[in-house]
Amino acid sequence: MLPQPNRLDDENDALVILDQSLLPGRVECRMLRTTEEIWEAIRSLRVRGAPAIGVAAAYGAYLGAKHLAASDPDSFYADFRAVCEKLATARPTAVNLFWALSRMDARAKICAVLPQQARLAALREEAKVIHREDIEQNRRIGELGLSLLHKGDGLLTHCNAGPIATSCYGTALAPILLGQERGYTFRVFADETRPLLQGARLTSLELMEAGVDVTLICDNMASLVMKNGWVQACLVGCDRVAANGDTANKIGTSGVAVLAKHYGIPFYVLGPTTTLDLETPDEAQIPIEQRAGAEITDLWYAHPMAPAGVKTYNPAFDVTEHALITAIITERGIAYPPYTESLRALMG
Amino acid sequence: MLPQPNRLDDENDALVILDQSLLPGRVECRMLRTTEEIWEAIRSLRVRGAPAIGVAAAYGAYLGAKHLAASDPDSFYADFRAVCEKLATARPTAVNLFWALSRMDARAKICAVLPQQARLAALREEAKVIHREDIEQNRRIGELGLSLLHKGDGLLTHCNAGPIATSCYGTALAPILLGQERGYTFRVFADETRPLLQGARLTSLELMEAGVDVTLICDNMASLVMKNGWVQACLVGCDRVAANGDTANKIGTSGVAVLAKHYGIPFYVLGPTTTLDLETPDEAQIPIEQRAGAEITDLWYAHPMAPAGVKTYNPAFDVTEHALITAIITERGIAYPPYTESLRALMG
Repeated sequence: MLPQPNRLDDENDALVILDQSLLPGRVECRMLRTTEEIWEAIRSLRVRGAPAIGVAAAYGAYLGAKHLAASDPDSFYADFRAVCEKLATARPTAVNLFWALSRMDARAKICAVLPQQARLAALREEAKVIHREDIEQNRRIGELGLSLLHKGDGLLTHCNAGPIATSCYGTALAPILLGQERGYTFRVFADETRPLLQGARLTSLELMEAGVDVTLICDNMASLVMKNGWVQACLVGCDRVAANGDTANKIGTSGVAVLAKHYGIPFYVLGPTTTLDLETPDEAQIPIEQRAGAEITDLWYAHPMAPAGVKTYNPAFDVTEHALITAIITERGIAYPPYTESLRALMG
Repeated sequence: MLPQPNRLDDENDALVILDQSLLPGRVECRMLRTTEEIWEAIRSLRVRGAPAIGVAAAYGAYLGAKHLAASDPDSFYADFRAVCEKLATARPTAVNLFWALSRMDARAKICAVLPQQARLAALREEAKVIHREDIEQNRRIGELGLSLLHKGDGLLTHCNAGPIATSCYGTALAPILLGQERGYTFRVFADETRPLLQGARLTSLELMEAGVDVTLICDNMASLVMKNGWVQACLVGCDRVAANGDTANKIGTSGVAVLAKHYGIPFYVLGPTTTLDLETPDEAQIPIEQRAGAEITDLWYAHPMAPAGVKTYNPAFDVTEHALITAIITERGIAYPPYTESLRALMG
């Protein structure tokens, strides 16, 4: 079994993460004690997956607060905000990062008047609650997702939205793992997900460990697999869902959604409501992280696999337009089109 | 400049190939003298690209004939057929291989009655004619393809159908290279084309050498590039076109075609009429080569990039249904839907 991706080590009062950048070759945990270390771990994808990033950032904010001087309420709160602002620069697209920091910020604002030790206890508790809630949400997402699937279904997923991307069952993988426990005998196709290979390195690993029948394919094989009639539903996670349902997720997700529509296959987005960003009206306002071209040309390879100096384009995410999404599954319920109404209703 | 992919060395009377499996890291030619060597070169993708495979196979048949005993016509022809049958097993999908061998076979049938030296001279000449015709066809395909494009167009291509996949300008890359000579300032996006990376290793290399503005992307980025409005046409080669226009080409081509349709972008297939297989009514009869899963999990990588023992699916080709193809561009003209009629008309 893989260790938990994020865990507060009570004895050392430090965040222990599973370094996802080393999988599947090495299973290695790291103990992080400072904001800077947690910022680096998120930035370099040692911790990845929108919900896991949110949880790590919450712990990062708490650990940052520990290093602040026991000053007056205003100074403490101002310094704490600076800690959060630093963490917020780690990655731009997944909204859970900002959501978790804003929740920590709200708690800090209230507890700033307390003595230093009580302030820290409150922030520690808040981060733990965020973590606990994520676990509960995953399970609920799994239950709701599973209600849309059938025994023996062929399923296709892109990137990794499994246990290590969250706190427990994952989001897109939650119905699959729950189904596995209940004898659904799904047959899963995992896109390898270039350039960082989260599907090859992480999803296929997690599903194999759980005993799920998983087949690894290159991203460009999804069309043929669907055409062959092997896929009854596509399940993906999400990094930010706008008010109209437009969904940012790992690069290539929009292509999977277009294919699913063409082949008449339902396309489901799964994520906690912490990934909803109803302040963002549509995709035009979602920032897309651009990453180094060497991830395409050199990373992982024994030798560079493209001509020296070749120009590249390496967006880490794309946005799937709401019209391509069959349903958005959250812990509060399943939203169907039109999403502008259904998502707002979910958020009550 | 890259050397020619296939060339008969007159002095040594041997086939000189550019070993494409080593690019872009090493530019290395090999001199092949036997049927077995040429079979291996095709099988292991040292020579690849449907037209180039046809030319190499023709030379392979001739070189095989050289090693046959100077026997009576019937024995000679029977032995020659065995040489061709062996070569035909090198790869199953590209029809040019079978077409070239069948043309060599027809010539052998006629020249079997001649003295041994005259037989060989005739077969040598036939292989050279096949080669020369391919060069002429490429140029004509380039001209016709260019007539459909506009200055400054953004173009997307998948896999490699450039000079090294053929004998000269290539097929899908022919209009781009001709356009470059004429100041069309195209902006080209090259899919890297997993798992064998022909786009990263070959297409971007060929286009950079020609001075074309080329950007390398992962296959799963094609959707976003199209969505961004950066692509005015998709150009791909082909390995076999059935009578109804269904087109086998490198795995992932059908996905590009589905995306192009969704985003309203013309999708063009380019290839010589030697790639048409009007005896095959539709895609159901096109055999799809399956290759080793290690190409996905291990090849090129410094370390294996998927869990040990993961199940894989690794088809080398897929078929793009005719309804997704805007036009098929051959050296004899441009075919538009309905292809059952237009392709037959082209073939006169």
